[in-house]
Amino acid sequence: MGLFNKDIKTFDDLLLHGLQDIYYAEQQIVKALPKLIEKATNRDLTKGLKDHLEETKNQITRLDQAFKKLGQNPNGIKCPAIDGLIEEGDEIAGEIADKEVLDAAIVGAAQSVEHYEIARYGTLIAWAESIGHDDIVRFLTTNLNEEKAADRKLSTVALRKGVNRKAAS
Amino acid sequence: MGLFNKDIKTFDDLLLHGLQDIYYAEQQIVKALPKLIEKATNRDLTKGLKDHLEETKNQITRLDQAFKKLGQNPNGIKCPAIDGLIEEGDEIAGEIADKEVLDAAIVGAAQSVEHYEIARYGTLIAWAESIGHDDIVRFLTTNLNEEKAADRKLSTVALRKGVNRKAAS
Repeated sequence: MGLFNKDIKTFDDLLLHGLQDIYYAEQQIVKALPKLIEKATNRDLTKGLKDHLEETKNQITRLDQAFKKLGQNPNGIKCPAIDGLIEEGDEIAGEIADKEVLDAAIVGAAQSVEHYEIARYGTLIAWAESIGHDDIVRFLTTNLNEEKAADRKLSTVALRKGVNRKAAS
Repeated sequence: MGLFNKDIKTFDDLLLHGLQDIYYAEQQIVKALPKLIEKATNRDLTKGLKDHLEETKNQITRLDQAFKKLGQNPNGIKCPAIDGLIEEGDEIAGEIADKEVLDAAIVGAAQSVEHYEIARYGTLIAWAESIGHDDIVRFLTTNLNEEKAADRKLSTVALRKGVNRKAAS
């Protein structure tokens, strides 16, 4: 949730902070994904990560629109959670020599990031609904549905496209 | 996933590392939950967090058994992701003066931790299944189901037990 929490006085402040948190997170993900794409070898995994990189850029545009609806400039706030999640992914991508074990680790790292976003968007949607920001709910719901689909695709890659089978063999 | 990733050579190593990661995470959660329980005011939220603290202790016992099945001593590895998630929760708990806005923020922080665990247990179960560790799959599935139930209870507290409504009023 980042710094400056002492500025959070109202539920609207909390929603704005949450948006700034996920805005920062999405930007860090755009920077982090190319490194994972470069390290991945399974073709379905590489394609899935590339597709999600493009989706993430569109998600940032939707967040820009959500800030606009609140009359605020889009702005990220450093968030230790996503930094930690990405740090884990980077460590893995740098340190595992076996390509097939690395692919399995990359799927796991990517799914932990997806779940962070699923949690955050779920919370933000509940908050925006309570306040009555229906237009913001719509932007966030589109992003949430994309994150859930990305998570399901990663499970498919791991379980049916051979990532885990090859890592185990 | 913590340090020492250069020791990950096989899929078994990756599974062991994942277990060490979630073992550390569960232990940090046991330390962090009492602080959130102390700060929360909504009675259903406090009860839910207290119940989950007890569940988490049982989950650690199940992880002890999973390590035993692998012939390993239970051991945690510092994991930047859970540290970042808990740091966010601590910051929020320390900095928001309005009790009802704070309750809503605590639900959000707790759900982001739940989703981290849901992601990790999901990944670990898939890995353990691929390797053929059916007994470990059972322990981890029990933990996963508890995390999913805890996440659903937090949504209920936020949406139907008045946390978000009061924060918005």
